[in-house]
Amino acid sequence: MDIATLREQHPDHWKLASAIRALAMDAVQAANSGHPGMPMGMADVATVLFQKHLKFDAKAPKWMDRDRFVLSAGHGSMLIYALLYLCGDAQVTLDQIKKFRQKGALTAGHPENFLLDAVETTTGPLGQGISTAVGMAIAEESLRARFGKKIFDHKTYVIAGDGCLMEGISHEAIGLAGMQKLKNLVVLWDNNNITIDGRVDKACITDQRMRFKAAGWKVLHCDGHDPEDIDRALTEAQKSNAPVFIDCKTIIGFGSPNKADTYSVHGSPLGDAEIDATKKIYGWDHGAFEIPADVKSTWEAIGARGAAERGEWEERFGAISATKQAEITRMMDGGVSKKLAGAIRKFKKDNSEAAPKVATRKASEMVLGAINPAVPETIGGSADLTGSNLTKTADLGVFDPENRKGRYVHYGIREHGMAAAMNGLWLHGGVRPYGGTFFCFTDYARGAMRLSALMKVPAVYVMTHDSIGLGEDGPTHQPVEHLAICRATPNTWTFRPADVIETAEAWEMALTTEETPSVIALSRQNLPTLRTKHTNQNMVSKGAYVIEEAEGKRQAILMATGSEVEIALKAREILQAQAIGTRVVSVPCMELFDAQDETYRRRILPAGAVRVAVEAAIRQPWDKYLLGERGRETKAGFVGMEGFGSSAPAPELYEKFGITPEAIAEKVKSLL
Amino acid sequence: MDIATLREQHPDHWKLASAIRALAMDAVQAANSGHPGMPMGMADVATVLFQKHLKFDAKAPKWMDRDRFVLSAGHGSMLIYALLYLCGDAQVTLDQIKKFRQKGALTAGHPENFLLDAVETTTGPLGQGISTAVGMAIAEESLRARFGKKIFDHKTYVIAGDGCLMEGISHEAIGLAGMQKLKNLVVLWDNNNITIDGRVDKACITDQRMRFKAAGWKVLHCDGHDPEDIDRALTEAQKSNAPVFIDCKTIIGFGSPNKADTYSVHGSPLGDAEIDATKKIYGWDHGAFEIPADVKSTWEAIGARGAAERGEWEERFGAISATKQAEITRMMDGGVSKKLAGAIRKFKKDNSEAAPKVATRKASEMVLGAINPAVPETIGGSADLTGSNLTKTADLGVFDPENRKGRYVHYGIREHGMAAAMNGLWLHGGVRPYGGTFFCFTDYARGAMRLSALMKVPAVYVMTHDSIGLGEDGPTHQPVEHLAICRATPNTWTFRPADVIETAEAWEMALTTEETPSVIALSRQNLPTLRTKHTNQNMVSKGAYVIEEAEGKRQAILMATGSEVEIALKAREILQAQAIGTRVVSVPCMELFDAQDETYRRRILPAGAVRVAVEAAIRQPWDKYLLGERGRETKAGFVGMEGFGSSAPAPELYEKFGITPEAIAEKVKSLL
Repeated sequence: MDIATLREQHPDHWKLASAIRALAMDAVQAANSGHPGMPMGMADVATVLFQKHLKFDAKAPKWMDRDRFVLSAGHGSMLIYALLYLCGDAQVTLDQIKKFRQKGALTAGHPENFLLDAVETTTGPLGQGISTAVGMAIAEESLRARFGKKIFDHKTYVIAGDGCLMEGISHEAIGLAGMQKLKNLVVLWDNNNITIDGRVDKACITDQRMRFKAAGWKVLHCDGHDPEDIDRALTEAQKSNAPVFIDCKTIIGFGSPNKADTYSVHGSPLGDAEIDATKKIYGWDHGAFEIPADVKSTWEAIGARGAAERGEWEERFGAISATKQAEITRMMDGGVSKKLAGAIRKFKKDNSEAAPKVATRKASEMVLGAINPAVPETIGGSADLTGSNLTKTADLGVFDPENRKGRYVHYGIREHGMAAAMNGLWLHGGVRPYGGTFFCFTDYARGAMRLSALMKVPAVYVMTHDSIGLGEDGPTHQPVEHLAICRATPNTWTFRPADVIETAEAWEMALTTEETPSVIALSRQNLPTLRTKHTNQNMVSKGAYVIEEAEGKRQAILMATGSEVEIALKAREILQAQAIGTRVVSVPCMELFDAQDETYRRRILPAGAVRVAVEAAIRQPWDKYLLGERGRETKAGFVGMEGFGSSAPAPELYEKFGITPEAIAEKVKSLL
Repeated sequence: MDIATLREQHPDHWKLASAIRALAMDAVQAANSGHPGMPMGMADVATVLFQKHLKFDAKAPKWMDRDRFVLSAGHGSMLIYALLYLCGDAQVTLDQIKKFRQKGALTAGHPENFLLDAVETTTGPLGQGISTAVGMAIAEESLRARFGKKIFDHKTYVIAGDGCLMEGISHEAIGLAGMQKLKNLVVLWDNNNITIDGRVDKACITDQRMRFKAAGWKVLHCDGHDPEDIDRALTEAQKSNAPVFIDCKTIIGFGSPNKADTYSVHGSPLGDAEIDATKKIYGWDHGAFEIPADVKSTWEAIGARGAAERGEWEERFGAISATKQAEITRMMDGGVSKKLAGAIRKFKKDNSEAAPKVATRKASEMVLGAINPAVPETIGGSADLTGSNLTKTADLGVFDPENRKGRYVHYGIREHGMAAAMNGLWLHGGVRPYGGTFFCFTDYARGAMRLSALMKVPAVYVMTHDSIGLGEDGPTHQPVEHLAICRATPNTWTFRPADVIETAEAWEMALTTEETPSVIALSRQNLPTLRTKHTNQNMVSKGAYVIEEAEGKRQAILMATGSEVEIALKAREILQAQAIGTRVVSVPCMELFDAQDETYRRRILPAGAVRVAVEAAIRQPWDKYLLGERGRETKAGFVGMEGFGSSAPAPELYEKFGITPEAIAEKVKSLL
């Protein structure tokens, strides 16, 4: 639909949409940076969505039964900021719109969930929004099944562009959503045929409608500038039994006389002259950032549309039992189940006595056997490695279209999609997600794992097969740099437990934070229980601790993690037999150790002894402990990997790469 | 087709295929580790492919006009090992088959290109093979256009499983291949409906045929156990004008009476009893690893099938000019163009005089302007950020279906697919690939970038917008841990040049190695030319060097990279003004510095001075230089990032995070 027709036939709609467009142009111009083209293109769709379909109350952005709105094409952030301002969001004031992309503004370059309550998820890295939304839709299905549709009955709407759909992660996400028949998920495709490099067909000729159909979605389409047609499609979307893909044909930079339908309007300000010309075409006779009172009040009425519905919901919520209310509220707030601490304590006590010799991946399965009954909000899963990651416990049914009460997701061979869905599960609320794959395939999930850290999502990544200890599968499957990668990532806890007890403690830490994702790196090979003396204290919470003290004068300190702690303890025996007093420090989590006070850190790693770190991985993260602090001399060494691994049985690889008690003892002696 | 019919109607084929199946079962059993199900399922397809379609000569696995065969489902490695042994490959002896997955064997758990000549690419991480193959097909199209189909006229065949097709990277790869109309690419889908977690539809209901059709592929199907039907499909594939997807319906572990068509045959040995029972069903009355002479000789004849065709090709190749022969041979061998050194030298000389103040991404574009005419084998590209990465020079036409001579690929918004395609371009031979995206989106390409390193592919990753210096786009786009990630990865050169001269030197290094991928991290913001005194020597090749010496007694050493070298030089001015003698060391590539001899390293970083490292990224990779070597005391500090970035104009972010000349000077003084 062209502008003249639109203005004539839908004058009220036109004004509402023009307000979005004008704000987008003005804010990008003021910032001299940003992406005006997308908000200008999708303003009509967004207006109809907010005016007629989205269930929300602008005054209560955290209302738990709201529809979720995800701007997957996050560069078009002015679309959501304009909508929030116009609807009367408490945080997004006109001042914030004017400070778009400036230091300290809540209106950051891309929408950030940690800055604005109404931003459901940080978007910007393409493809993440649509994939995170799949997790939100799973969470809603799960909670609806468990608590009833009087409490949970909402949809997740996504606006996605060509970038989102070209990214590989979108394939994983739409495949998962299609299989799961997530009828509560609606994706609106901003089909404008433009990317940064030019017209889409320069790089992509994919028939997106056919593609979504192939993945099991219901496919609709509309003229993205015709409010009636948009409304028709959105209305039809409500009746689907599968996730819905709506192809919205739009023009990027709609109305800009010289830049519409070109990539030049994608990521740059239009310039004052072009803004003036565009506003003239819009019939928008107002200064920069100026919204006429009637338009603003109509928008505010839209923002208040859901207030009555929310009131009814509050009544329904108030009518359920106080216990259930408290439980739902705790789960939605991400609080810790009171039963967890006791379950972990009992598990530790039992297992320090039983002292099983098991792989830490098996230990993790055992711990989950204690956790999952005590923590009803966990939803586990694996990227098609259930029997290897050992993430499924007996009590978890499988979440699928026939059993929405199941708490285990077969994510398929979709590591990245799984990680993004885990983000969505948490961001929706009510769920603590964990999911497994081989540690090496952190590589495939990095994009979403980084967002877990940035968005403060305490997802738990159960990463098994954590070193050359996996053996025959060889270097493509053997992580060597991945501990360094996880430790390099801000706000990420990287656990590498040494035995069943440390595994339990790592899980306890991972499940009691509300803002930090955890990577738990677990062995394929069996390891003895080292902590056979029970303590209620969570030693992993300290990050590092003395697991075996030196006898006699302390000449050496060995630091190790995971499967190498056992090897370090054997090295200690060799050294002690030669009267070299040797302390062994287990370092299950560097981030937590670094967060301890200096007194504790110096107590664990005192000056004056030779230090050798042992880890079947590269040295980079260890240098900080091998470095003497501020002028303190330390002779130090490292026993680990210098390059990629190799294919052979695990014990032979440890020999080949020289990660043995003997080699460690030799290293210590060479430094004394 | 069932086994009884197959044995009766195609007895000769059956014996050939049985040989593959028997070897797969025996080798996995002997190793007590591996994946027999896939080779057993795809033996018929592979037999027909090798016997009737694949152009190859087992005695000349590096013949440049051979068809490429990629086992994307690399866990089924015994399929390719069995084929190679049976065809008479010089490396894969029966002894190697017996040593499958053992220490030192060429027959590693997954096929490794660096172990076997006939393995075109390392596979194992799912989805990589099919995506790498797209690069191989592009290389063939490009070379055919440039040198004629008498020299280059071959196909790339891929065997892919459900895992490969579920991974996101496959979406990027098939989208790219479809748009590029790569008719020389044929994917054979092992459609066995089984993954590790069970039946495929537990996680995926995608209609793969429709999906490939949506991406512009020609779609065929066949009974994967009927040799005539397989042959019909492969024959039809020859006539396509688009890439071809053949849905081969197969049964995993075909013939195993108790395990066929179940996941239990996917990744575990069958056991002796089941092997005996299976061989009975096969009518295979031979001991473990035993291949009857007639079967072996038939297979060896298949291995020699292409010898005559290769002879004809050798004649054609011999008939072209000696210059052209030499050029093609050099390009296929990966040798360096003789014109490169001169072009770089001239560029450096010109620019040390002109001393432009440009972003290093712009500097990179300028260098490419000198490189691309001198190095005809480069094929550049970008993941839809051409105008941001500045990877396209004027002389490069666009490679697309209408212009196969173009040397620039619009990869689309497909970072992972781009990286894998770059691997394929190099592995095919004849091409030096480079490609760009934002440095932060290393995250999206990690899977393939790791394989560049493992496979020794000297791809060049042009990673612009390398720090908070990109400004307003905010933390999702601002790398902080990515330098650490690249530096942690074995066999990867991470360059962060400080000015136009270092940028040229980094490019020279990247283009003269035949075994190491390079990441060149480049600034968005302008930087002055620091190296205004020309030298022919490539200083970046040393990894680190003194860019400004201390005046007076050397009390401090500042180390910095990229955009922070300028800041360190300003800090030096402050310190020198206070009579604190300060050396500034530019560290454009840690890996190359660490490879220098100790004398050089000590000369650049001598003992006795305070050391402060400056980089707008996290500290992890720097600790090794802040650590005094073996008992040498060093007071050291770091000025950089401790967490994620933020959205604001770049200069304000440098202030906010305290990466300023003043902060550096203060840090030095606090340590003195």
